[in-house]
This record gives sequence, structure tokens and C-alpha cells, in this order.
Amino acid sequence: MNYGIVLKVLGSILILESILMIPSLLISLYTDQSDKLAFLITILITGVVGFALARNRSRDRHINAKEGLAIVSLGWISISLLGALPLYISGSTPTYIDALFEIVSGFTTTGATVIPNVEVLPMGILFWRSFTHWIGGMGILVFTLSLLPALGIGAFQIFKAESPGPIAGKIAPRIKDTAKILYITYFTITIIQVILLKFGGMSLFDSLVYTFGTVGTGGFATKNASVGAYNSTYIHLVIGSFMVLSGVNFSLYYSLFKGKVKDVFKDEELRLYFAIVFISVTVIAINLFKTTYSSIGLAFRDSFFQVGSIMTTTGYSTANFDIWPTFSKAILLLLMFIGASAGSTAGGMKVIRILVILKLIKREILKIFHPRAVKPVKLNDKILPNETIAGINSFTGLYMIIFVLSTILVSLEGIDLESAASSVAATLGNIGPGLGVVGPTSTFNGYSQISKAFFSLLMLLGRLELFTIIALFAPKNWRREI
Amino acid sequence: MNYGIVLKVLGSILILESILMIPSLLISLYTDQSDKLAFLITILITGVVGFALARNRSRDRHINAKEGLAIVSLGWISISLLGALPLYISGSTPTYIDALFEIVSGFTTTGATVIPNVEVLPMGILFWRSFTHWIGGMGILVFTLSLLPALGIGAFQIFKAESPGPIAGKIAPRIKDTAKILYITYFTITIIQVILLKFGGMSLFDSLVYTFGTVGTGGFATKNASVGAYNSTYIHLVIGSFMVLSGVNFSLYYSLFKGKVKDVFKDEELRLYFAIVFISVTVIAINLFKTTYSSIGLAFRDSFFQVGSIMTTTGYSTANFDIWPTFSKAILLLLMFIGASAGSTAGGMKVIRILVILKLIKREILKIFHPRAVKPVKLNDKILPNETIAGINSFTGLYMIIFVLSTILVSLEGIDLESAASSVAATLGNIGPGLGVVGPTSTFNGYSQISKAFFSLLMLLGRLELFTIIALFAPKNWRREI
Repeated sequence: MNYGIVLKVLGSILILESILMIPSLLISLYTDQSDKLAFLITILITGVVGFALARNRSRDRHINAKEGLAIVSLGWISISLLGALPLYISGSTPTYIDALFEIVSGFTTTGATVIPNVEVLPMGILFWRSFTHWIGGMGILVFTLSLLPALGIGAFQIFKAESPGPIAGKIAPRIKDTAKILYITYFTITIIQVILLKFGGMSLFDSLVYTFGTVGTGGFATKNASVGAYNSTYIHLVIGSFMVLSGVNFSLYYSLFKGKVKDVFKDEELRLYFAIVFISVTVIAINLFKTTYSSIGLAFRDSFFQVGSIMTTTGYSTANFDIWPTFSKAILLLLMFIGASAGSTAGGMKVIRILVILKLIKREILKIFHPRAVKPVKLNDKILPNETIAGINSFTGLYMIIFVLSTILVSLEGIDLESAASSVAATLGNIGPGLGVVGPTSTFNGYSQISKAFFSLLMLLGRLELFTIIALFAPKNWRREI
Repeated sequence: MNYGIVLKVLGSILILESILMIPSLLISLYTDQSDKLAFLITILITGVVGFALARNRSRDRHINAKEGLAIVSLGWISISLLGALPLYISGSTPTYIDALFEIVSGFTTTGATVIPNVEVLPMGILFWRSFTHWIGGMGILVFTLSLLPALGIGAFQIFKAESPGPIAGKIAPRIKDTAKILYITYFTITIIQVILLKFGGMSLFDSLVYTFGTVGTGGFATKNASVGAYNSTYIHLVIGSFMVLSGVNFSLYYSLFKGKVKDVFKDEELRLYFAIVFISVTVIAINLFKTTYSSIGLAFRDSFFQVGSIMTTTGYSTANFDIWPTFSKAILLLLMFIGASAGSTAGGMKVIRILVILKLIKREILKIFHPRAVKPVKLNDKILPNETIAGINSFTGLYMIIFVLSTILVSLEGIDLESAASSVAATLGNIGPGLGVVGPTSTFNGYSQISKAFFSLLMLLGRLELFTIIALFAPKNWRREI
């Protein structure tokens, strides 16, 4: 491990964080609320720590897989550790662990909260927590669409099938190119949504906050009732549609921009993603209309919003889906696991992995009849290498194992199984609200401090594609000689 | 598809079934109860249908993969269709679907029941339903340990790594050899348990019934309170131990018999199986003692029995585990999915598949550090072929997909999610009781007729390793030219 370069990059990340806190400070100065000092202190601490780390000199400027992964996981952890300070110092949360949970939830674009009444929070704090979604969303795009493929790791290689595998030390230029395209797309979508929400009668502040929560698929709100506080079909539809759009692989927007319309609509993951959204919205709407809703239009509106919100792992709500019939709840729980597309800001297992697993199952069935004719699995007309398939299988296996063991641990809190399981699913999948004690009208505040710390870990695990965090703890990583 | 040979073998199976009903008829004649006529009629019908089918002549006597799988799935279905008649004719169940559910549950060694009060059933019927466990258990051993490997299909190939793959038409002699060894082992275990139970004060009838339920890992009882009706630590321990022993790969008993003691105890699946049992028993016992039990001894006794019962998918109960703390319940739910060893009479996903998935995950983590050094996965010092790994991955993926989609369907019954999910887990995994509305003190009787039929299908799917049943429905199977 090249410690010098890791610390240097971490320093730069912290300097960037302290700069990114300035808008929140300005808001707190402008509104003259209790959080002024909290931001001032945090910006100073973060800046000083950042500069101290960035001074590290390293002759060897190579970033290999090990260093790349260490930077990503330690980066996410350190911006959370320091980013939590404003909440704690301003007294917005009673303990530091609570503040940490909240800001990990922000940066991982989860949106789970431990603050029962967000409406009393100072404006600067409200802005900061939502802004972390936006920063985290950007970070995850760079991570999954440029760093991972450049390192040749995991399922995301498939986006760069032409990539000749891991190229030690040469990843920086390529990351910069991809990142630039992503910045532009991300900014464009953000600006369009802010304008649309402003046009719908929202204040500029709320337009920004809800847009951060949407494009980052986070879910933090300024109201306890989430988007449900706005009784406007227009706003529900705008946020609902932009959630679904934020669950699309962002590299497809680039293809679209380049005029490759046909390629985009032939993309197998995109098709399956839209198909799942369409089917889920329809069957839930019918189920709602047949049981509790009197208007089919309203049933479709709420079903569309909630399916979009849960599948893209945003977590906004316009209705208390915890009291919906079990059939609808079960579908939402399934969507929590699937998640949206890879290469988007969404969490969960990702549609592409489900797609590959379905293809493997189909091949297995065919194999019964033609045992000798084993065909390779194709995705978008390209053959998937065995390594990628092994990576996908290991990922889904590990995801389920972490889910099950975590549920068992969390159930020690003495809650019911549905609450325990959905709390884990909602944090590991970076969704936000779950069912039961963590339903959309409730928060994670009832959990003990140790559980809150544990959920923070789960959010990081889910966000960084499991293996990134696990690799960090693998002792082999820290031996210099390897 | 060679229809002639399929029908011929099915005929032989039905003739065998009618013979196997004779003990039940004798019991009903001896006890002079209402089920005499029911057995007489069924034996005649089954025999006549069997002889009619067995008269099919086929010049081509080859049994290939297609024919083998068709015989197994159609065989299980037809013995269930006819085996359900005594229950329906004798009025033991109000509808034929109920009778079918009960007897599918018997032959698949599930042990889920729709009969709220089994204590009023005639003796012949009680014997027949439990005897189906024993027959089904034997059938599944022959299926998984001789037919599947001989056909070169699925995860079970690993037991015959030396097998040169599918050998069309030549599987019969090999199946006969393996089956003979299995018969002897199965009989021996059965006789020992009957003697031990008789020695513990059980009547011969009950000793037989509970032994059938144990060695077949079924779970049908003669008492509504299951094994809990016997307030004897000795009986709990005997049945508990034999459940655990019935979850061991039966080919290991043969190795043991041949003196290969070292090989047996080095078997990786066996070690993991015992480790899971040991850890689960311990943590559940501690959890019970800390919450509801006042005696640590009693906590261990009930924990051992329930872990053994659930993990081996037997389903007997000595305590109402539905009211145990969520932590203990969550562990039991996990065990429902794992199941016991492959090549045993147990259901579930099987320990060996979990083991291989853990190995794949470990390899994936190592790959992060050494991207170029991909090592093959080994099991018991033998390299697992990629095809076997693909088979295991497809199986677990399909298992989860069927579980989730079925849970969503079943939740249309308007029950809570825990009940819906555990009903599916309990039938698909061939366990028997679940949690909530299908807890150990309850039955599947509350479900609608259509759900009962659906659960019967799930039991068959789980029992026949999913792909066998799915292959049956694949249209390609029925074209003569392939």
C-alpha cells in the first residue's frame, strides 16, 4: 500500500469538503440561526486536517487497485466523520453517533433519519444534510462509472468491455474524462428539476433540497411528511419522474447526447428497469384501488411515486405505505432489493445483476435438454466474461448473507421481524424508510446507539458495493510488501 | 421424448404404491375404523391404473435425461394424486384439494398439514400419511444420490466427480447399485430409531409414525401438539438426534460403513452442517434463557430440538417457537433456507450450496488484491468444475426468485408479511410449520383452496430441486424430435 498518495488524496477530499460547506455557512449567516458557529468550526477543522494530510509527499504517484479502494472507502468515512460535526455542535442531534448516522445516511444517499422533527432544524443544517446527498450522488457516479471499471473490478467492468483490464498508475486521466461528462449530465438534470419545482410553486430553498434528494436518490426532506406535505399532483409527478430518471445508468445519457438513441433504447438493463417500474406501478395501483383507495387516478399517482421512490432507493413518500395491503408492501420490499440501474446514483443490488442471474437461470434450464451445448451469456450482444459472472454471483450471495446476518443481529433490539428485516434492507440498499418501526411516518431514532452505528456501517457497505469496504478490513491490504 | 418407457415406469411406480398401501389397509381392518373402504377402493384404482400403464410397450428402452426427469416429476405427481384418495374418500379432509395438499406434503416430506385436529383421524389414515414421508424420503435419496448424478445434472454431480457425464440409456444398473446401499442404510436407521422410541415408552404405532416423520425429515405426528405431547426428555433427545442424523449426506454413512472414518469427518459439508447446528443451538438457548426460560437445561433441550427440526426441514415441535424472541425466530427462518446436507432426506437450499457460495465470495475478495491470480474453487480437495458452480448459482438465484414472487402472490390472502413469507419458505423448503398464521400450533387450513393448490406446487418444486419440475413444463420437452 502506497500510504503517501492515499493520505494526500484524502487531504484533497477534505479540503474540498470544507469548501462545499461554505454555502451552508452562508445560509446560516443569512438566516442568522444557531448553526453559524457549528459550520465555522467544522470548516476550519476540516480545512486544517485536509491541508495537513495533503502535505504528504510521495515519490511514487501510482494509484493501483488497493490505493483506489482505500481512497474511496476512507474518503467516504472521513467526510462523514467530519461532516457530522455541524449537526452535533449545533445540537441538532443529541449525540455524535446520531449526527454520524444522519450524515452517513446523507453521503451514501440513503435518506434514513434519526431526527423525529426536521421542521425545527436550522436552515443551514437542513441545506447541508440534503447537499450531502448531492455530493454523495456525484461521488458514487465517479466511483462506479470511472474508478471501478478503470481498476477492472467487479460487475461494472461490463460498461467498459473494451477496457484492457487493470492498468496500474494510469487510471487518473481516464477517470478525469469520464468524470467531466458525468458532471455536466448531473448538473443539467439538477438545474432542470430545480426550475420545474420552482415553477410548481416551491420556494427556491425547498426546490434545491428536494432536487438534491431526488437526483442523488437520497430522500432527505424539509418536512416531516416528506413530499406528502405538498398536496400537488404536479410536484408529485415531477419528483416521481426525476427519481425514475435518476435511476437510469448515467452513461446512457451521454450516449443519448451523442445521438445514439437506438443503442439507448436497446439497452437490456434499461428495458428491464422500465418494465419492472411499469408492472409494479400497475399491480400496486390496482391492489390499492381494490382495497383502500376510492380513486383509480390517485391510486396510480401514489403507486407511481412510491415505486419510483423505493426502486431508485430514494425513500421519499407521499403516502404511508406501511399501512398498504401486504401484497403492495411485499412488492415494495422486493424493489428495495433490486434497486435501480448500475451506474446511477441508486443503491440496492441493481437491475443488471438481476438480469444476468435471470439469464443464467434460463441457460441452466436449457442445459437440461442440451447438456453439451453450453452457450455463453450475452448482454447487449456482448459475451459476458466468466469473471464478471462470478463477480455478480458473489455479490448477490454476499448481499443476501449480510442482509440475513444483520437482520438476526438487529432483531436483538426486541422488535418484530418485519421491522428488523426492512431496517436492514433500507440501510444496506441505501433506501431510507422501511416498514414497521422504520416506516415512512417514523424514523430510526428508536434504535440504540450501537444499532445506529451498525446501520451506518451497513449504509457504507451497500453504497460502496460491499467488497470495497470489506477489502479495507482485509489484513492483506495493509502489508507493504504486497 | 420416449413416451412409452415413461408411461411404463410410471405404471410400475403406481403398482408399487398400491402395494405400499396394504399395511394401512390392514391397520384399518384391524382397528375396524371408517377408512377401510377408502383404502380398498384406492388400492384397486391405483393397481388398475398402474397395470394399464405398465402394459405400454416400447421398443426403445433408453432412458435419457428428459425421460428420467419426466418419470421423477410425473411419478411424484401421480402417486400424490392417487395417494390423496384415502383421505378424501374417508372424509378425513373436506375437499380433494385438502387431501392432495396433505399427501403432497407427505410424499415431499414437508409435514405441513391442513387438518386442525389429527387426533380424531382413523389409525389407517394416520399411518398412511406418515408412511408417505418414509416412502418420499427413500425416493428422494434415490433421486438425488443416483438418478441426478447419473444424468450429470445439477449440483449433485459433485458426489460422483469421477462420473464421465451423462450416459444415455446406461443409467439403470448404476442407479440399482446405489439404491441398494441406500435401502440398507435407510432401513437400519429406521429400525434403530423405532427400537429406541419403543424403549422410551412409546406405543409401537407411535414409534413407527414418529420414526417415519424423522428419517424422512417429514414431520407428521399423531398428536396436535407434535412431539411436545411427549413430556419426556429422552424422547425429545432421541427424535432430535435422529433428525440431525437424517440431515447428513447418506453416502457418508456408506463411507463410514466401509471404514473411511477419516474421510467422513473431513467432509467439508458435514463440518459446516454440524457447526451451524452447534452455533444455532447455543445462541438460541442463551437467547431463550435470557428472555423467557428459567432453566438453562430446558432452554438447551428445546433449542436443540427446534434447530434440528427446522434445519433438517422436519418440522416437529416441542415448543411454540412462534412466540420466541425475534432473534431466535430470525435464526430459525435462516435455517429454513439453508436446510441440511445434500444427499439427505432434508429440503431447503442445502449446506453444500451455501458452502460453495461462501468459497466464491472468499475468492472474489482475494481477487481484489491479486486480479490475475484466479484460483479454482475446491471442495473436499477436488476442483469444482465451472458448470457445477454455475448450476449452484442458478439454483440459489431461482430459489430466491421463486420465494419472493410466491410470497407476493400469497400475500394476496390478506395476511401479514411474516406469515406469507414463512408459509412459502416452509413449503418450498419442505419444512412444514412456519411463523405467524402457520406457526407450530396452527395449520395451513386457513388458506383458500387455490393457495393450498399453489403450496402443493411449491412443495413439489422444492423437493425436486426446482429445475426438474420446471423442465417438465418447458415446451421443448414435449417435442418428439429433440
